[in-house]
Amino acid sequence: MEIKANNPALKSWIDIKPDSDFSIQNLPFGVYSDKQVTHHACIAIGEQIMDLHMVHHLHYFKGLSLPENIFANQYLNEFIALGKEVTRKLRDRVSELLSNTNTELQNSPNKDQIFKKQSAVQMLMPVRIGDYTDFYSSIDHATNVGKMFRDPENALLPNWKHLPVGYHGRASSICVSGHSFHRPKGQMKPNDAPPVFGPCKLLDFELETAFIIGKQTQMGETISTEKADDYIFGMVLFNDWSARDIQTWEYVPLGPFLAKNFASTMSPWIVTLDALEPFRVAGYKQEPKVLPYLEYTGNKNIDINLEVLIQPENSEATTVSESNYKYMYWTAEQQLTHHTVNGCNVNVGDMMASGTISGPEKHQFGSMLELTWRGANPIKMKDGSERKFINDNDTVIMKGYCQKNNVRVGFGECKAKLLSAT
Amino acid sequence: MEIKANNPALKSWIDIKPDSDFSIQNLPFGVYSDKQVTHHACIAIGEQIMDLHMVHHLHYFKGLSLPENIFANQYLNEFIALGKEVTRKLRDRVSELLSNTNTELQNSPNKDQIFKKQSAVQMLMPVRIGDYTDFYSSIDHATNVGKMFRDPENALLPNWKHLPVGYHGRASSICVSGHSFHRPKGQMKPNDAPPVFGPCKLLDFELETAFIIGKQTQMGETISTEKADDYIFGMVLFNDWSARDIQTWEYVPLGPFLAKNFASTMSPWIVTLDALEPFRVAGYKQEPKVLPYLEYTGNKNIDINLEVLIQPENSEATTVSESNYKYMYWTAEQQLTHHTVNGCNVNVGDMMASGTISGPEKHQFGSMLELTWRGANPIKMKDGSERKFINDNDTVIMKGYCQKNNVRVGFGECKAKLLSAT
Repeated sequence: MEIKANNPALKSWIDIKPDSDFSIQNLPFGVYSDKQVTHHACIAIGEQIMDLHMVHHLHYFKGLSLPENIFANQYLNEFIALGKEVTRKLRDRVSELLSNTNTELQNSPNKDQIFKKQSAVQMLMPVRIGDYTDFYSSIDHATNVGKMFRDPENALLPNWKHLPVGYHGRASSICVSGHSFHRPKGQMKPNDAPPVFGPCKLLDFELETAFIIGKQTQMGETISTEKADDYIFGMVLFNDWSARDIQTWEYVPLGPFLAKNFASTMSPWIVTLDALEPFRVAGYKQEPKVLPYLEYTGNKNIDINLEVLIQPENSEATTVSESNYKYMYWTAEQQLTHHTVNGCNVNVGDMMASGTISGPEKHQFGSMLELTWRGANPIKMKDGSERKFINDNDTVIMKGYCQKNNVRVGFGECKAKLLSAT
Repeated sequence: MEIKANNPALKSWIDIKPDSDFSIQNLPFGVYSDKQVTHHACIAIGEQIMDLHMVHHLHYFKGLSLPENIFANQYLNEFIALGKEVTRKLRDRVSELLSNTNTELQNSPNKDQIFKKQSAVQMLMPVRIGDYTDFYSSIDHATNVGKMFRDPENALLPNWKHLPVGYHGRASSICVSGHSFHRPKGQMKPNDAPPVFGPCKLLDFELETAFIIGKQTQMGETISTEKADDYIFGMVLFNDWSARDIQTWEYVPLGPFLAKNFASTMSPWIVTLDALEPFRVAGYKQEPKVLPYLEYTGNKNIDINLEVLIQPENSEATTVSESNYKYMYWTAEQQLTHHTVNGCNVNVGDMMASGTISGPEKHQFGSMLELTWRGANPIKMKDGSERKFINDNDTVIMKGYCQKNNVRVGFGECKAKLLSAT
């Protein structure tokens, strides 16, 4: 199916730099506020946002049969729930309005209320997340962890290549990019001594992406790999902050809990799966063969360049990781199929994260744990200081973009600052 | 602090049988529907419900400053969020209206709209659950599982007595008592053979209770054991259905996932923590001493008799377990303190379940896994059939009540029927 808004030949009448994440072929959805607006849905274009409620209010979306205040909700859930047929038409219409062949908005007297500088608005949580699941689907990451903590010769656990391992996470503490949080406290277990309580010492980022569910199922329903894309609205960048020392002590036998649920960070713009379609690439070759319900056809990985930077207080940021979503062993479609194969129901706004995305090369590892190999090889910052894990007052920034045929579709930033323990 | 509605001397003008869970000292909250009503909040009294919206509408709650449609919401969250001072006053006022010394409602011409038979209405999900956490806090359960699957001599894992082990679960598939669901399908691993896909063979119940959060915190805040009760609105019975064979294969290293998230069942009535206060008993003696943040004073366990029955299709129910909440090693207050000690925020309506509640005696075990010791000792049903785990078309019923000084405060039923795999 051809998606009109993806046409690489499209140009906008808005000035967009060649390295902008927000080309006219992207048009990701978010929710913003400023002095005038409590919360309106918007789309990113170049360095600006376009206020969808205002455009709707001025009747530029007539014919799309949208509810009157659909873009004035606190979250995008109700809009997303209208279904892909509607959201796709809306994105096509926005593309048309922004195209240099269209003059409807270019000459609008309301231009100042419709278009605002991204630097002048605050981006809010784009969705009300119902349930949040985190997978563990990068083979390089799982292998690195297995080598460090288990058997270097048998790094992957027996189930790993048979099913996309996943677990439920905490939705309440997922924040939108730009927040800060305090170093968590918890129980840690020194070797040969009783457990102690105090601020976590080994705080780490995890470079991930996440997809947002766009279509509800009922309990008992299963989503096949073939239909999975119909249920995925779009993707974001995701930092699954982890307290390594808390995790080591708590996670057997029921998995990570307080080592994760103190904070997670997501990027504010949901890049639609539609906008990512042109960047599909072949998936990882899966050996042994997966069970039939997990089989799929076609190119289901996506070539998304990913980068992590650490910015110490009052200093320049240093790139510490350059990875890519294409290194994932399990695809998003397989994850969603597996998640629902037992009849588990999903709701619009649910979030499912990839797990740490590491590539095969050392500079492509998606966490400090792997990059410094448990602290053995510290990373030098531009200010001369070294990092084994994340220090107080460091800001961690994740970026991601696809690029092909001079079209760039990016995610913007996913950033958060770690404050000292209280 | 004395809670007026708990007065054991109170008698209602409504006829309440001595073995009713819903004495005038209980007054649990729920949400119901019938032909006339889409969703109204209500209170259980004897064999009836009292429609709170109707009572409010008729001005019997004047002076309590309640929002006009607070009892006409789909869920109780907004009511609970008003805070314990308000919800406690409301419960006291309901108690007054139902007391045999009060005639306001006895002679009301609207009595038929206010009071309805429980058998004539449908109970709905009482709260919109944001996040759901499951703990693992019964020492007899954890010991039994350790004996079966790990080392009988070292059944408890090293962290178990130092922190209340817990993990995040799926909120979307929690249903209210009375539903049915299909036997889940999934991956299982036969010994010495590759994994297979099919209907789960070892479907089990887990006898649990759960508490409902009544007061929000912000990220970074911690709830002390001393203040924890201020954040707990009330409790329900909870069946944490588990697919043992799916779990065995999937749960290492990140915990249970598809083995749990296909369905869970909760009882419809939230019994307030206030109503449970008279039944507090001393907690489990905790050795080794817990870290200071987990210490607590006072009687923080609760003497709640628990029972599980299996009812085969077209047959009588058989009691298979008789346990008690008082056997819990970790208290609800410790669980909540631990959950927030890292700054994890909680929201009104979040649910935190106890984990399987087993007592020390064999008939007190809280799952078929333990009761039949992995199927080695099947249980005989009244119809002559045997159960190692749960069969298709079985209904599992959980009950619970406190009793002291001729006052009974109960939970009603938590029941669900297992249908065959689709």
